[in-house]
Parts: sequence; structure tokens; C-alpha cells
Amino acid sequence: MKRHIEVTFEPNGCRVQVLQGTTILQAAKEAGTKIRSECGGQGICGKCRVIAYHMEGLSNLTKNERKHLSSSEIASGYRLGCQATITQDIVVNVPLESRIWKRELQTMGTERPVPLNPSIRKFYVQLSKPTLSDPTPDFERLIEYLKERYNLDKLEIEHELLQILPDILRKAKWNITAIVWNNQRIIGVQEGDTTDKTFGLAVDIGTSKLALHLVDLTTGITVETAAIENPQVAYGDDIMSRITFAMNSHRKLEVLQRLVIKAMNSILQDILTKTEIASHDILEATVVGNTVMHHLFLGIQPKYLALSPFVPCLSRAVEVKARELNVKINPNSIIHVLPIIAGYVGADAIGDLLSTRIHDAEDVSLLVDIGTNTEVLVGNSHDILCCSCASGPAFEGGHIKYGTKAVPGAMTRVEIHPDSYEIDYETIGNQKPLGLCGSAVVDIAAELRLCGLIDHQGRFNPEVDTPRMRAGHSGMEFIIVDRKETAIDREITVTQKDINEIQLAKAAIFAACSILAQEKGLTEKRIDRLFIAGAFGTSLDIENAKILGLIPDVPIEKVRLVGNTALTGAKMALLSRDEKETADILSRETRYLELTAHPGFSTEFAKAMFIPHQDLESFPSARNMLEKRK
Amino acid sequence: MKRHIEVTFEPNGCRVQVLQGTTILQAAKEAGTKIRSECGGQGICGKCRVIAYHMEGLSNLTKNERKHLSSSEIASGYRLGCQATITQDIVVNVPLESRIWKRELQTMGTERPVPLNPSIRKFYVQLSKPTLSDPTPDFERLIEYLKERYNLDKLEIEHELLQILPDILRKAKWNITAIVWNNQRIIGVQEGDTTDKTFGLAVDIGTSKLALHLVDLTTGITVETAAIENPQVAYGDDIMSRITFAMNSHRKLEVLQRLVIKAMNSILQDILTKTEIASHDILEATVVGNTVMHHLFLGIQPKYLALSPFVPCLSRAVEVKARELNVKINPNSIIHVLPIIAGYVGADAIGDLLSTRIHDAEDVSLLVDIGTNTEVLVGNSHDILCCSCASGPAFEGGHIKYGTKAVPGAMTRVEIHPDSYEIDYETIGNQKPLGLCGSAVVDIAAELRLCGLIDHQGRFNPEVDTPRMRAGHSGMEFIIVDRKETAIDREITVTQKDINEIQLAKAAIFAACSILAQEKGLTEKRIDRLFIAGAFGTSLDIENAKILGLIPDVPIEKVRLVGNTALTGAKMALLSRDEKETADILSRETRYLELTAHPGFSTEFAKAMFIPHQDLESFPSARNMLEKRK
Repeated sequence: MKRHIEVTFEPNGCRVQVLQGTTILQAAKEAGTKIRSECGGQGICGKCRVIAYHMEGLSNLTKNERKHLSSSEIASGYRLGCQATITQDIVVNVPLESRIWKRELQTMGTERPVPLNPSIRKFYVQLSKPTLSDPTPDFERLIEYLKERYNLDKLEIEHELLQILPDILRKAKWNITAIVWNNQRIIGVQEGDTTDKTFGLAVDIGTSKLALHLVDLTTGITVETAAIENPQVAYGDDIMSRITFAMNSHRKLEVLQRLVIKAMNSILQDILTKTEIASHDILEATVVGNTVMHHLFLGIQPKYLALSPFVPCLSRAVEVKARELNVKINPNSIIHVLPIIAGYVGADAIGDLLSTRIHDAEDVSLLVDIGTNTEVLVGNSHDILCCSCASGPAFEGGHIKYGTKAVPGAMTRVEIHPDSYEIDYETIGNQKPLGLCGSAVVDIAAELRLCGLIDHQGRFNPEVDTPRMRAGHSGMEFIIVDRKETAIDREITVTQKDINEIQLAKAAIFAACSILAQEKGLTEKRIDRLFIAGAFGTSLDIENAKILGLIPDVPIEKVRLVGNTALTGAKMALLSRDEKETADILSRETRYLELTAHPGFSTEFAKAMFIPHQDLESFPSARNMLEKRK
Repeated sequence: MKRHIEVTFEPNGCRVQVLQGTTILQAAKEAGTKIRSECGGQGICGKCRVIAYHMEGLSNLTKNERKHLSSSEIASGYRLGCQATITQDIVVNVPLESRIWKRELQTMGTERPVPLNPSIRKFYVQLSKPTLSDPTPDFERLIEYLKERYNLDKLEIEHELLQILPDILRKAKWNITAIVWNNQRIIGVQEGDTTDKTFGLAVDIGTSKLALHLVDLTTGITVETAAIENPQVAYGDDIMSRITFAMNSHRKLEVLQRLVIKAMNSILQDILTKTEIASHDILEATVVGNTVMHHLFLGIQPKYLALSPFVPCLSRAVEVKARELNVKINPNSIIHVLPIIAGYVGADAIGDLLSTRIHDAEDVSLLVDIGTNTEVLVGNSHDILCCSCASGPAFEGGHIKYGTKAVPGAMTRVEIHPDSYEIDYETIGNQKPLGLCGSAVVDIAAELRLCGLIDHQGRFNPEVDTPRMRAGHSGMEFIIVDRKETAIDREITVTQKDINEIQLAKAAIFAACSILAQEKGLTEKRIDRLFIAGAFGTSLDIENAKILGLIPDVPIEKVRLVGNTALTGAKMALLSRDEKETADILSRETRYLELTAHPGFSTEFAKAMFIPHQDLESFPSARNMLEKRK
């Protein structure tokens, strides 16, 4: 017989009763204590480290735990939350590095002005009263007025509005505001003139975060922005973990769908309270996200995205009533989910295009939207080709021993003194360092290479004489910050394994760029603009990115760090029906290349595993720098 | 303090606990015992007669009760259910004439063949499997096929179907049936080939009954018909009582809406069980009804129909998902409620037109759809004019002392021997007579007139010597059936008040016909066809109707008893999108005349109060008959 056991989580003191055999990670979820778990509890990522005060209350160490924890850590009571199951009442400490923080989230991307032409419009209507000689029915009276004054033809109306229209018209003495969607359908009627209260929502559902703009549709101005961690991270940090969770049952799919919608409603509620805007005046929403986020948001089974030939359910834009998705804006308003391009190039890439306007220019652009999954698009007004690669979460702090997201204390910049190997760094909020975020991951790899601490192949050079280099648990490692200086009571290091992860990530991205360029018959010189969107926000050191070989070696003046262009694109679609149409066209016309099926990919990938690249000829500025340092 | 009291209803033995002060009618409703109540419990109709075994358990007699009950009835314990409130435990007997019967309901009208072109179609689809070189998404794969094979362009899909489409496609090995509405929208997907299972529903919601056809949309054949009493009659027999009930609150409006939908679902369930057809294969419904029934069915407040200028909420056709109305057919299917013409000329009149095709002919037609509210339409392919009049329920057995609906035992034909004044009659099911139904009401009035028992003004002639004539409670009355012969243990009589009711009813209908004819500049001779639809079904004696002056005196070969043409019209609209379009045109183009505002109406009405009419010149055949009898 299983029995109930009490688990207490420190330092927050949350308690929960669980059954014998429950994992610590599961117990934490039930207690409302958030613990990192990038792999979804499979024992792979090693991020759910906790400290148990009484080892006798837990199951024996697993193989995975021995792999991720050093013997001194094991001696200090460290366990992995997903591996250790609970056998007796126990107190568990969640160390700093394992907690999920409210991240400093990127909510702004490069924004371009769009002529206002939103799908939703309010019309003030002053009707004449019916009489025996003019007994036109209420609805026909309304639409005849709208036709005459505003040239709106063939208007439809929500059935439920018919149920309130007669009363509202008479209560408002025949002066009402009609809310019209797409010049087609009346989705609301309000007493009096409310035309000044017309708002919309642009939302980007990222794998790890959800960001939105609340926009005044009468001016086009963002009234408020907000962002929140995507709560689906509790079921795994990457899209594959989410698919794995959802594919088992419709109920689990619904769990993920509800989580993200609940998070959206929660930040929305916050900003509505703050701005004193009524939810029923939010009359449209546009949503972007990668294809998996898109499917999960719409409650569509994503499992076929994980199976060859990786087919999405649909690519075109989806319009659903807010009521159907339980998004807490005006229930009759339409949520416009932008179209996708392919199984791994989603509506977020459409947003990238809208925002950067690659499709409008003669100039040839290369756009890299870096995330766990990286989308690469190349082309101009004549043709755009895109692909996607699984770059892994290294540039978001994942799969890196001391990697972290962009939370307070995250290191954003690292510099190694070429002679002393002393380190300069910056952290978010100037707090004690917690770990390396994306831009610092690029810096450290590039700096190690520039200083000759790692070689062309990414291997530590054992001949360099510095106390910062040592043999670690799994190969060589480099101490970036001493234990005394960190917030985590351990050194922050970068390991040989980390370097390998970084190489895998950057090689995937660079190979994707190479293949696309080859397919388009382009060389680096032909690239007029290089857009870097996504994970790094605007904090990437571009020279270091070139040293690492993450991006093609183009002159720095051609490079733009554009931030969250997916969200900006969503906002542009919110502001204009023309942008929505452009999105539809881009979805149909952007060509997609399936990299996994491309014969040249593995060769390109192998070449790009070198730092910066096997072929130094194509990295002239990086080569110069390296030679200078020598 | 009010306390609980037990009431038992006989002969069915139903019991219920009620609070002191509850009326018998209300208690009966709660006990599930159905008692007639044409006026909705206002003490006006006198139909809710019950017999109380202990008078001490009830409140004192009201003025209304003294008006409707004879002293001998009062002595026998008769009370009106809506007037008497309960003070102690009591047993109440519900006599035969106060019970609500399952009526013999008219479900068939004159039917004309319609070329099949339903809004709903099923398409069998055999898709190729996606591959890496053809990774078209599921939905796009489906609609590209439908476009190529069936030329269906710009198809949309229900959001919820996206949630099941990927699984169904793979389970069905890419062979599915798509259910497409209006060549526009995919409302269902089914595994394999189910194209032979495509059904629809045509429904007529009458004030007193609900009738429907279950139709095979692949052949156009009615598979099954069914009908049921409109359960809203518990809240009053005429539309005004329903409006009065519903206008108080949204909740009460919902009560009426739910009642009629529940009744619809209930007979539907019966015929589905009988025919072994699955509810999800019923893919469309068309609905007609008068404007009040139309509003109540759609949950639209009908109160403004009762207030000048009598404006409906809308006139055009309404399309609502079955799910939204909780009608138990395929939840994504569309319920198409046909358009109306005006506040008192509803979708039923549109059905009348579709069925009789007045709008298609050069011949001038007059159509009279007789009910509590009577619609009159006159015209041809060039122009149709219509109006409506409150004719009252006399021809449905209401407001007539021994009037009854067309239930078993109802007298359908009455003949008075001109010399002996002996009576011949027929009853439904050859049962002992219970009362007079509509056709017998016409017969008795015409026969009394032919025999000189009533005069030109409808007054009983006291000089005729027959024991059948006597002074009754409120003026003279004529005994039609002796107490010994009836099923109700009382004589069946026709009273002076009944004759007056009949005169009021027929005068309203005839005056409406006259005014319309005048407005169109027509005489009787110009009427090529006279359609009589509605209450009488096909059992009216047309010669008697002319003697009474109910209808214009046109040659009998021009008259058609067409029955429930409203329902037939609904079926035609179900079978064909063209008929739906015709309905829309008819709704817009049929001219409406508001009789209450017409200056000539009261004069015409007064003239028509005579039997057959003040102006005998326009009733040549009736005049001949009357002169012959003299």
C-alpha cells in the first residue's frame, strides 16, 4: 500500500502531500514550486538539481544522476528532481540555479509604421425610430444605415446579438455603436458612441515565452506590452518534449493548450487592470508562434510534425472566435492565427518577414531567427527560400552546464584577457553571476578561440598554462567565475561538453544558411542585409558571432539585431488587413527546403563544426582577428 | 408561513407537493398533468375546468369562475384550474374535455417536385499520402483535392475539425468523406465513404403544433414525418399569451425557447430510433413558423411584435449552428430559419408561397392560411400583397364552448336536417363526441343559417319550434348532441356567444381578403385560384365556408385545400438552395399591408360580420342556397 508523505520545499516553505514513489519534480509541481526541467523529466538535461536534507527519504541514485552530479555534490545531498522518488517525509532545498525566474523577456522587435486598416472597426450609428409607415425590422434598419453611410454591403450578424439588439436599440434611443469585423460581420453592438475604445492584441507564443502588445487600433500605438514564461516549460523545454507529452492523449494536448491560454489571460488581466481598459473592448487578436506552438494553441494534435514527412495540419491562417479558445477578450472577437510555412517554419517566420520586409526589397536578405529551433530565410522580392534546423537550446542557456535564461544575474557579456586570461563580464541587473545567457555563450566560445584556449576543432589546448583550466568530471573545463564571486556557491565553468554543444548549435545554424545560400546560388558577398532575430534580442556581440562561425562573415554594417520580429509582425497584421493578406501570400509563396532530406547538409554541418569553419577562406575577418591574436 | 400541501390529480393519480396558495393549474404543471389553458392562466378562456372533491381545500370562487361555470357545474365541484388556489390537501379530477391530447396533426401539405440542390453535400475523397517531396499540410491536401475534382473553391473549415482531421485522415488511410455546406465550409469529416447517408430536417413550428419531415437529401424523399403539440401551449394558447409570458424576463423567454427545442429533439429521437438513422448524419434543418414562433425559437425577445409599430428583430433568413440552439442533429450543421415578411406574416407564409408557387404563375391566387393568426396573400408573378389578421382560435376549437382540437372524438362534420333539425355528424376515430373541431364549427354555423335557425346577423331565431333550442346561461343555445351520446357527460351545444365568436373570426379573415383584393383592384371573378391552408387541413366543407362567408364566393373548382403548406415550403427549401434564394427574394419583395392602420378595415369587418355578408350580391352561390332553402 502506498501512503501519503509530506514534502517541504525550501526556501519558500511550500508543502504538499504526495504518494510514496512520487518524484521530487512531480511533488514540486503539485506544491506550486517551479523547478527547471528542460527535458521534461527524462533525466537528460540535469537542470532539476535539488538538495535533500535526509538522503534516507529518497530512492537510490540513478545512472543519470551519477552522470550529471559530481561526487562532492552527491555528498552534499544533491539529487535530480526527476530521478529521485520520495519514500519518507522530507525537506528539499531548491538551489538558485534550479529555480524558474520571471525572465527579462524580449517583447519589442524592429517596428515599421503600417497604414491603419484593421479588420475590426466601430461605426457610430444614429437610426430613425420605426413607425407604422416605416416598420423596417431592427437588423435591416441597422444594416441599411451602415450600407448607406459606410458602404458596407452584405453584413451578417452573430446570432446571439439578435437576442440583445432590439433591447439595446430602444435603450440607447436608436444611437448605438456597431462593431464590424472585416466589413462582413457585426460582432458587437454597444449603447451610444464607443468608437474611441477599439483595442487589439498581438501575441507571440514562443516555446519558452509568451509576449504580447495591447494596441490602440484607432492610433496604432502599443498601449502596453507584457510577457510571461510559457508555462508549458513544465512539460519540457523544447518542442519535442511538448509533442512527446501531447501525443499520448487528447487530454494531455488540452493540458498544454489550456496552460498557454491561461498564461495569456493572466498577463492580459494584469495589463487591463493597469490600463483600465475593458476586456470587451479588445476586439481582435493576432497570434504567431512556431508550428508546434501554433498547433498546441489551437488544440491540434502536433504529433505528425515529429514524424516524417513532418506534415502540419494546415498552413493557412486560422480565424477562431475568442470564445471558442476561452481567450478573455470580447468573446465574439476573432483570433487571427497567422499562417505558417511548413512543419518547422511557423507563423513566427511569417512575422519575421512582415517585420523585416525582406519580400519588399530588391536587396538580398538573410534572416536567422535563433531559438531552440532556428528558422533561416533568404531572398528578396522575387523569391524567398526558407528552412529550419534543430539548433538546440544552447543559445538560450540550455544544455550548457552553467547556461541560464536572461534572468537577473545572468551573464550577458564575457571577455577573456588575451595574456592573463582574466575575465571581464556583465550581468543582468549587475547581480552576482548565476550562469551564462545566450550572448555570453557566444562570447565565451569566441574568446576561448581567440585566446588559443580552444583550437579550430573546439578542443581545449592542454598546453596553455593557467589555473583557470583544469580537468573536470568529463574532460577539460575552464573556470569563468570563481566560487566566491558567484550567486550559486559553485564556480561557473565552461566544459568541453559545453563547447561541443555550442559547436553543434552553431554548426546547424550555419549549415542551414550555407545550404540555403547554395540553393539560391548566393555567396556571402551577395547578402545585402543579415537580420538576426530571436534568442539574443539585441545583445549579441556580432564580431564574436563571426569568430564563432555562427553567422556568415558579412560586414558589420550589413547586420541588424532585430529582436522579436515575430511579435512585431503579429502587431503589423493586427493593424492592417493588407498585412494579413501579405502574410497569406508569403505563406503560399515562400519556398521551403526540408534540410533533413538535403544531400549536402551533413557535409556542410561537418564543415561548420570547426571554429569558425573548416573553410577559413569564407571567414576573412575572423581569420584576420585570429591571425592578429597569434 | 406557507406550508406544503399534497395535491393528487385523477384519473392519472399524479401527486405533487406544493405551497399553500398555488393554483391548481400550476400544481398540475408541476405534477406533469397536462390541462388545457388557452389563455395562459388568465381566467379568460375557461378551458382549465377541473372537478374538486373537497371544496374546503380551495380558495373561494372568483368572478371569472362564476362567468365560465354554470351553477349546477359549481354545485358539482367544477372550478377553473387557473383561478382556484389550494389551501389544504386535495384530490382534483381532470375531466376529459380539459385534458391535452396528442392531436391528429396535419404534417403533409401539397408537395411539388423540386430539382435536388441541397445546401449540404458529402464528397468522397481519396487523397495521396504525404511524402518528404510532397509535404502539403492535411487541410490544404484535402481542399486541393476538392477543388480539383469538384471545383470547390475557397473552402473554409470548422476550427474543431482541425483538431480531429490529422487523426481521421491517417486512421482512414486517406480515404474520407467531407461534408460541405453551401460549397463554402467543411462542417464534418467521416472515415471512408458515407455519401449515401445524407439527411435533412424540415420543421414547421406552429403556435399549437410542431411538425417535421426527415428527408433523404440524396433522393429528396421524406423518410418519416412526425408531429407533436407545441409544449409552449402550457403558457397560453395564442401568440399574445406567449409574448406576455416572455416579455417579463430573459429567463422566461429561454423557458419558451427550450420547451420547443426539447419537443423537437424528442420527436426527432423517436423517428431516429425508428429509422435507425444516426443524428450526426442529419446535416441540415430548415425551419418555418410565424414571426413570434420564429423569434422564440431563436431566443429573440418578441415583445416589440406586440407593441406598435410591431417591428420584428429581423426579416432575412437566419443561419445558426445546431450546436448553438442545442438541436440534436449534427452539431456543426446549419439550421436555416426561413425569412419572414413582417411582424405578423412570418416564415410560414414564405413556406406557403414556395409550396403553392403563387409567385410563379400569371394566374391570380388568393391564399388564406388559417390559424389563431391568419395570413392572407394575394397576387401572382408580378406582385404579391399580404396581410395578417387576428382571427382568434375559433377554427381551431378555441373560444368555443364545446370547441376542441382535432383529437379522437372531435366532431369533424355536422349536418342539420332542414325539417326535423336532427343532426348527422362524424367524429375522429368514430368515437363518442367530445366537441367541435374547426371544420365542424364552420358546418354548424352554416347549417344553422341554412335552416333559418340563425339569421343574417347571426342571432338565434326564437320563433323556430324545436326542443334543441333553449335559453342557456348566456342567451340562446342549440343542442347538437344529447348528453347521453357524448363522451363528456354533458350536452354539446352551440351558444349565441359561440356564434358571435365564429362571426368575429370569419369577419376578420374575410375583411382581410376584401381589403387585399381592393388594394390590388381585384374582384372575386379575377381570382383564379383560392388556396386554403392551415387549421382545417383538408377537411373543410367549402360550400359551408362560403355560406358562412368565411371565404370569397368563388367556384369550387378554383378552391384548393392545401393543408400544411408552410411545412412543405420548408421541405422545398431544404432540398434546394434555389428555393432558399427564392424565399429571400419573396421576403424582400412581398408587400405587406398593416391592417390595423388601414382606414377601410373596420367597415369591411362590420360588413363581414353578417352571414354570409351584408352585401349578398358578392355571394351569389350562397344567396342561391339560402333562397332555395327558404
